[in-house]
Amino acid sequence: MKLATYHDGSRDGQLLVVSRDLGTAHYATGIAHKLQQVLDDWGFLAPQLQDLSVQLNQGRARHAFPFDPQRCMAPLPRAYQWAAGAAYPAGAASAGHPATEPGVFQGASDALLGPCDDVVLPSEALGIDFGASIAVVTGDVPRGVSPEQALGAIRLVMLANEISLRQRMPHERAQGTGFVQSKPATAFSPVAVTLEELGEAWDQGRVHLPLQTLWNGRKVGLCEAGQGMAFHFGQLIAHLARTRPLGAGTVVGSGPVSNPGVQDAQGRTDWPRGYHCIADKRAMETLHNGQPHTGFLQFGDTVRIEMKGKNGQSLFGAIDQAIAAPQGL
Amino acid sequence: MKLATYHDGSRDGQLLVVSRDLGTAHYATGIAHKLQQVLDDWGFLAPQLQDLSVQLNQGRARHAFPFDPQRCMAPLPRAYQWAAGAAYPAGAASAGHPATEPGVFQGASDALLGPCDDVVLPSEALGIDFGASIAVVTGDVPRGVSPEQALGAIRLVMLANEISLRQRMPHERAQGTGFVQSKPATAFSPVAVTLEELGEAWDQGRVHLPLQTLWNGRKVGLCEAGQGMAFHFGQLIAHLARTRPLGAGTVVGSGPVSNPGVQDAQGRTDWPRGYHCIADKRAMETLHNGQPHTGFLQFGDTVRIEMKGKNGQSLFGAIDQAIAAPQGL
Repeated sequence: MKLATYHDGSRDGQLLVVSRDLGTAHYATGIAHKLQQVLDDWGFLAPQLQDLSVQLNQGRARHAFPFDPQRCMAPLPRAYQWAAGAAYPAGAASAGHPATEPGVFQGASDALLGPCDDVVLPSEALGIDFGASIAVVTGDVPRGVSPEQALGAIRLVMLANEISLRQRMPHERAQGTGFVQSKPATAFSPVAVTLEELGEAWDQGRVHLPLQTLWNGRKVGLCEAGQGMAFHFGQLIAHLARTRPLGAGTVVGSGPVSNPGVQDAQGRTDWPRGYHCIADKRAMETLHNGQPHTGFLQFGDTVRIEMKGKNGQSLFGAIDQAIAAPQGL
Repeated sequence: MKLATYHDGSRDGQLLVVSRDLGTAHYATGIAHKLQQVLDDWGFLAPQLQDLSVQLNQGRARHAFPFDPQRCMAPLPRAYQWAAGAAYPAGAASAGHPATEPGVFQGASDALLGPCDDVVLPSEALGIDFGASIAVVTGDVPRGVSPEQALGAIRLVMLANEISLRQRMPHERAQGTGFVQSKPATAFSPVAVTLEELGEAWDQGRVHLPLQTLWNGRKVGLCEAGQGMAFHFGQLIAHLARTRPLGAGTVVGSGPVSNPGVQDAQGRTDWPRGYHCIADKRAMETLHNGQPHTGFLQFGDTVRIEMKGKNGQSLFGAIDQAIAAPQGL
């Protein structure tokens, strides 16, 4: 099934079931008002949502209406935990992480952005970067879980735009206390989907489909999300759960998707499938030319992130958002 | 007023108003079931709880019952955000932080421990340390707030036991991605109190009272919580909110309380008021003897953290918990 959350003026919004083709939706009222409730009591509530999903997909749901991603909050508008790794160590944005560890950091989960929400930041000088990623939502995870066991705790999959403030990161990295100012709110796709919606594309903790990123309407990345993922989601979750259990509704991100470079006939490394964060692009440029020339995001820039299934249909809907200055600035 | 949360089998527990002397309590039913609700709608709900608090303190509340800290969860059993600083840079546990920055890190908020909950950890070899701290709970905080404005967003104050796994910290610090495995769940005092309960002891973002820590029943720390606090809570909150707003219910910790050392007649530095984390004690020993001799916490060890007002009464109730191996280990 596919789940979304509409803005309704409240902090947690209103839970919807969305049809497989993202064409129609139905309020989950009567089952649950908000997604956290479902995650807290998955075994009891998910089957009821699943029944509604079947009715909706068969055109039999009684109060279905057209689904509008513009009205979406993040599927989980605020979470009790958000952590992200650097699961694609081939990407330059992961530079500095030993490839033996998934570089998981604890992020801010008090406000997760909807797919069409502006990314409001005080200054372009912060080095604003997008980060097209995959994210999962877990149920309860016991302490010390193995990577394989951890896969069984994954409830939902989403896309994420992990915003980084690259000019602030070296300072925070040097302090050794993690990213507080350099990782503002992360945005999520209109819908979160269960694993069965991914079918064979979900295999051993990875989503084996290409992720597409557009920057100001221009396609800049079409990497395979499965191929370069050195640490699968079970490994990310197990890393996080090594010394403590994780509560239901923990959101875990992969870090920006990237594929390893390939050598062309002249022996030069190239990245034909592009990039999913500007830091990677700048690292490619530095390798080729000794310095980066692509600048970070400017106010007014747009970022669109989407993943299509083998049938060409959008699986999660698109993250499609603009970078904006605070009002009144 | 003073607020607490009783275990009731649910993830968020049941909200109570507790009398000033911690002798009696009254369910907040009819006003709010859980503390997050109150933080989400403080202006509307807090005055109603305040009325109940007045009745309770006057002995006029209709269904009051004896307050039992053993039944308490953390006042906010799970939060959308937990971050802690190193606000006492004189303490050895803060070593490595430049004293110009408060060393704030993002921590896990999906499960906050109650005052009498066991601290369950897989191995003593992790270097288990307590960390007797002060913590505040905020309302909504706008992006870019000044330290002085941030003080106005503080709703509640608690005590915290910030558990650290010291043997795991150097590795995570070197990675630069913050503390994921080395900072398991933090524990909180039985009650959270509003600023007016602190009276004159609350001044400019600091609690000017001694904090008391007992390790296995022996008093090891009685530092002034106001004196050595180089970064007050407004500064910690402003640091966290520099690039993003903070949601209501953000919990911010001070890091272990410490007081600067004093020179004795022989010119030797001493810490007559003791320590509130073992890392500080070990740093003192290293300074005196070239190496630490106090070991970290063992299974079965107990830690008791409490703060008394000028009248000698416990303000927050006591954190009083044991370190324990997982069941079946």
